[in-house]
Amino acid sequence: MPVNDTAPAISEEQLQEILSSHREWHNFARVLHQSPAIYQLEMERIWRQGWLFAGFEIELPKPGDFITLQMDNAPILVVRDDDGKVRAFHNVCRHRGTTLCRESSGNRRRIVCPYHQWTYGRNGELLHCHGMHKDLDKSELGLKALHTEVLEGMIFVSLADQPPPFDPARQLMTPFAKPLGLASNCKIAKVIDYEIDANWKLVFENNRECYHCNVGHPQYIKANYDIYEEGYISDSVRTQFEASVARSEKSWSEAGLNAAHSEGGLAHFPNPVNDIWYSANRTVLSDGFQTESMDGARVVAQLIGDYKDADVGVVRLRTMPNFWGHASCDHAVLTRLLPGGHKKTMARSYWLVHQDAVEGVDYHLDKLLPFWQLTAEQDWELCKRAQDGVDSPGYQPGPLSKDREYNVNALVMWYMLQMKKTTTDDKKSGVQECNGAAA
Amino acid sequence: MPVNDTAPAISEEQLQEILSSHREWHNFARVLHQSPAIYQLEMERIWRQGWLFAGFEIELPKPGDFITLQMDNAPILVVRDDDGKVRAFHNVCRHRGTTLCRESSGNRRRIVCPYHQWTYGRNGELLHCHGMHKDLDKSELGLKALHTEVLEGMIFVSLADQPPPFDPARQLMTPFAKPLGLASNCKIAKVIDYEIDANWKLVFENNRECYHCNVGHPQYIKANYDIYEEGYISDSVRTQFEASVARSEKSWSEAGLNAAHSEGGLAHFPNPVNDIWYSANRTVLSDGFQTESMDGARVVAQLIGDYKDADVGVVRLRTMPNFWGHASCDHAVLTRLLPGGHKKTMARSYWLVHQDAVEGVDYHLDKLLPFWQLTAEQDWELCKRAQDGVDSPGYQPGPLSKDREYNVNALVMWYMLQMKKTTTDDKKSGVQECNGAAA
Amino acid sequence: MPVNDTAPAISEEQLQEILSSHREWHNFARVLHQSPAIYQLEMERIWRQGWLFAGFEIELPKPGDFITLQMDNAPILVVRDDDGKVRAFHNVCRHRGTTLCRESSGNRRRIVCPYHQWTYGRNGELLHCHGMHKDLDKSELGLKALHTEVLEGMIFVSLADQPPPFDPARQLMTPFAKPLGLASNCKIAKVIDYEIDANWKLVFENNRECYHCNVGHPQYIKANYDIYEEGYISDSVRTQFEASVARSEKSWSEAGLNAAHSEGGLAHFPNPVNDIWYSANRTVLSDGFQTESMDGARVVAQLIGDYKDADVGVVRLRTMPNFWGHASCDHAVLTRLLPGGHKKTMARSYWLVHQDAVEGVDYHLDKLLPFWQLTAEQDWELCKRAQDGVDSPGYQPGPLSKDREYNVNALVMWYMLQMKKTTTDDKKSGVQECNGAAA
Repeated sequence: MPVNDTAPAISEEQLQEILSSHREWHNFARVLHQSPAIYQLEMERIWRQGWLFAGFEIELPKPGDFITLQMDNAPILVVRDDDGKVRAFHNVCRHRGTTLCRESSGNRRRIVCPYHQWTYGRNGELLHCHGMHKDLDKSELGLKALHTEVLEGMIFVSLADQPPPFDPARQLMTPFAKPLGLASNCKIAKVIDYEIDANWKLVFENNRECYHCNVGHPQYIKANYDIYEEGYISDSVRTQFEASVARSEKSWSEAGLNAAHSEGGLAHFPNPVNDIWYSANRTVLSDGFQTESMDGARVVAQLIGDYKDADVGVVRLRTMPNFWGHASCDHAVLTRLLPGGHKKTMARSYWLVHQDAVEGVDYHLDKLLPFWQLTAEQDWELCKRAQDGVDSPGYQPGPLSKDREYNVNALVMWYMLQMKKTTTDDKKSGVQECNGAAA
Repeated sequence: MPVNDTAPAISEEQLQEILSSHREWHNFARVLHQSPAIYQLEMERIWRQGWLFAGFEIELPKPGDFITLQMDNAPILVVRDDDGKVRAFHNVCRHRGTTLCRESSGNRRRIVCPYHQWTYGRNGELLHCHGMHKDLDKSELGLKALHTEVLEGMIFVSLADQPPPFDPARQLMTPFAKPLGLASNCKIAKVIDYEIDANWKLVFENNRECYHCNVGHPQYIKANYDIYEEGYISDSVRTQFEASVARSEKSWSEAGLNAAHSEGGLAHFPNPVNDIWYSANRTVLSDGFQTESMDGARVVAQLIGDYKDADVGVVRLRTMPNFWGHASCDHAVLTRLLPGGHKKTMARSYWLVHQDAVEGVDYHLDKLLPFWQLTAEQDWELCKRAQDGVDSPGYQPGPLSKDREYNVNALVMWYMLQMKKTTTDDKKSGVQECNGAAA
Repeated sequence: MPVNDTAPAISEEQLQEILSSHREWHNFARVLHQSPAIYQLEMERIWRQGWLFAGFEIELPKPGDFITLQMDNAPILVVRDDDGKVRAFHNVCRHRGTTLCRESSGNRRRIVCPYHQWTYGRNGELLHCHGMHKDLDKSELGLKALHTEVLEGMIFVSLADQPPPFDPARQLMTPFAKPLGLASNCKIAKVIDYEIDANWKLVFENNRECYHCNVGHPQYIKANYDIYEEGYISDSVRTQFEASVARSEKSWSEAGLNAAHSEGGLAHFPNPVNDIWYSANRTVLSDGFQTESMDGARVVAQLIGDYKDADVGVVRLRTMPNFWGHASCDHAVLTRLLPGGHKKTMARSYWLVHQDAVEGVDYHLDKLLPFWQLTAEQDWELCKRAQDGVDSPGYQPGPLSKDREYNVNALVMWYMLQMKKTTTDDKKSGVQECNGAAA
């Protein structure tokens, strides 16, 4: 029984009491958005249990290419090994704990600790530790490997000993992701990093409803039917929408693409009943929109992936707790969240285009970026204002709209489910300890 | 019994032990100035129980005019409603907690949440929440109202369910405040905001003695008899002082003004025996001083309020835990404190003059400001140095002068009294929950 | 039993469990490098128990000269009294706790509190407190004195009631320190202050091994035999080294200097078996090095201290937990650590030269500084990277090299010994309370 005084100053009993006191169709209790202790428990039960989107395979084209990321206090290294396999490790030397790679990306022949030059292979194996005594068993001192899965070029890692099965996510998401060519023929046109002064749940719940879009995202709502939940759609818009769905289902079916989300409003996600943390669907765009851009006009000359025709709507991908994104015919915009404290969330937005597209020729950033950059920045500002408000002793969880915030409710219920899981390894570090080479 | 892990990590028993170990006529124990847990308890038992000065009615001349302030983690909105009444609310949406008004002042026809456009009337009533399900009871979702009182143009709010009676304060303070015209014919000539790196008690105790004035405030002590407590006054100064008091009491009485504080040194306040948190009095100025200015000369052409003659001395007003000020014949300077953490206090100083006074013509800021700006800034520096010292493990509460620090002692005793009150709602949020419209 | 809610949120039992779970020849447990509670206990059991290097007598040539330093939250004042004695006090007024001297150095005839002008003599005695009531016993209100010892011009202070005996340190270190003339004929040529984003133990353990020097300090390893532990020395280097030792022992013995450390690698320190916190030795320089400079050439015209000849090797001095340094023939570089939080350490490096040496004539800073400035800055960067790594949940204490990290192991064991001491005054403030004048 390791002792850790940085562990939450809240008992399991207190936590369960907070969770039990939750009122149906209402927002999170105040304490859940502002307590460092709750945050610590969330790291244990959600962020160090589930699958986290880490980045793209195309960021690691060659053996030895790596990227780094920081999940709360955990530095993570993702590297392509000599056999071409993507691996992830704790970015921490097994000797005295020094972080190994500091750059956000690069290439290494060997992973050499800058402190005492312990040297690891690209598969995590400890190769050399010159200066150590002779009888040291190097085979036990490989880098600590993280479970890693690649889904159509998207890299997911888990800090859990036993992460949830990944295959169901792969089965559901692959048909939607595969045509996008994320694995094979994309490039990253732009990355923007944000530091949001809000708890990660406020950021994700913002993503789970379009109730705020009408005023909050004037550019966004022109492109899609997200704000037209049943009861909020006029007859004329409904007629347009239904015609679009009918037309697109027919043409997409002929093109071998999967079917559209055939209702207004957002698709239901996450699913707290069956504990489903992944989702994908395809939605129609508004009449006059070929892609998610300010005016609906194409912003990249080349179509992405396997697409032969621009009429593909928008593929939407999402996984709890840190990933979502939209892919139009000519570009995709995906977002990775990483918690950086109980009131701080790091967001990275990636813009992907066809690998042959040339900036300044085939696309221009001032056309490509604004649609989602505006949407993101409008959202982060709302999240910050929400954090300031829930910090108030005057805050009391309000009612959620059954019409327009069903997904916020779903998020709350999914969260409750995770936090109620009394994992047997709560007291463990949540770290898989194994020889990197064998992982 | 709500659970809140942000609640103090100190038990009632421990607190009472700290309070009981207090040594008579000595300063606060070290822990009381530096513990985040104690600070939290102070918020509950003092700052969210009592009356807080918030601002002036003249800041809200028209319906819909508002000001905002931040008391610890509580954003507060003060607004004039359509009937002309000043109201205060938690500046937090009842839906998902977003802060409503971010500007420090402004005007609103409706109070509209920027997130989902829930719309409140100026009386706090929830008018619209388009997008919510139909059976929602809007009447239960008005803004959370704070008790509000206006005393001669000075706005006081309380975050308590049941604040202490306000009428005794009104009765005592009105005769002193009324002639100043704060409610009717003043304007704010200048506001300066300060962030002080010290616990709020260090700031208020600094205000409660003039033992430090002799060296600390060379300009201040020329204007008044604050440093001349019994035993610290020479015969010649006493002769002057007594002549001033006799003369002024006569003329003030004829002018219908209330009487002078007739001793040297500061008037006694607060009163821990009868738990009195408000006070007012009128003091004479030194010979040659018409007003509190660097040289004693008038700094504004117009007299304030009802004054017909400049010979009115200085009216002093104060309420625990966040307000004090002086009003001379031609201007008033009032100070509002707001805690911003266990070692941070926000202070705002307001300079008020007659509403007809024109800057650059009837007054000049370089004459109006220095007397109190210097005094304030000298004090904040002393407070910071005191905080650094009490943080030391070498700090031990020292003796208070029975001659010159009787009011610091009174402050300590008043504090003890508040902290010993075992309120039945310690565990509540200290928030009055009601329909804003009915408050 | 005073109550202090800022006290560690960790029980003695938990602490002892952490310490007991330590695995031999392995690094510190993660919690020991990142817990604020552990840090607080370290302040109590190590930093407020032992002797701390504070500065040099030459910084206080005349009565009334003072220096100040900040050890965690304790401001400390070191002053030369009227009799020429060096004294140290809590730099905190006995009245209301204000810090007394804010400058890092200066001279005072009297120590006057800026708040209410309580006035102390240079011996700490309370001389005046005008304004206090008459029956106050001033003799009980002198500054709180700290135990103080001067060892060949180096000032050590202790915040303990009963610090460990200093004489053994004096006996061992004096023969090494005396010839350096630190007490009598040195001056400080340069001071550089650093703020290191790492726990103090990471900083000190960095100092206790040269395993990292090979790559980390290319300039440093040219000057000495620190990296040549048994097993890591080639035959040719061993031949050089042994010849150097033999030659130098002979010449030093003739010059009356104490003997050399006659093995490659670092001398053993600290000593956890006998709980020895001080150490000194003399080492040979590499062939071609007269002093610790970039190229081995002399950097100051004058030799320091009693030295008649440049062939004196390097004297090394160190005391736990905050002091180390090297003295070559012509200059000395000494380092003081002060903790500033659980992940922050303040380091000050002092360069000392002969008092007659004139900058720009007898020495040039661009020649004098680089050797140690580079070494220090390289180390601080490594310490920061180590802190980032041990913060990770993926960190697990790694094995220490029995060949090259014997002193890190010794440091760990020495630390365990201190932390296991269940002092009877853990709950006291660790402050010696006495009349300054009598201390």
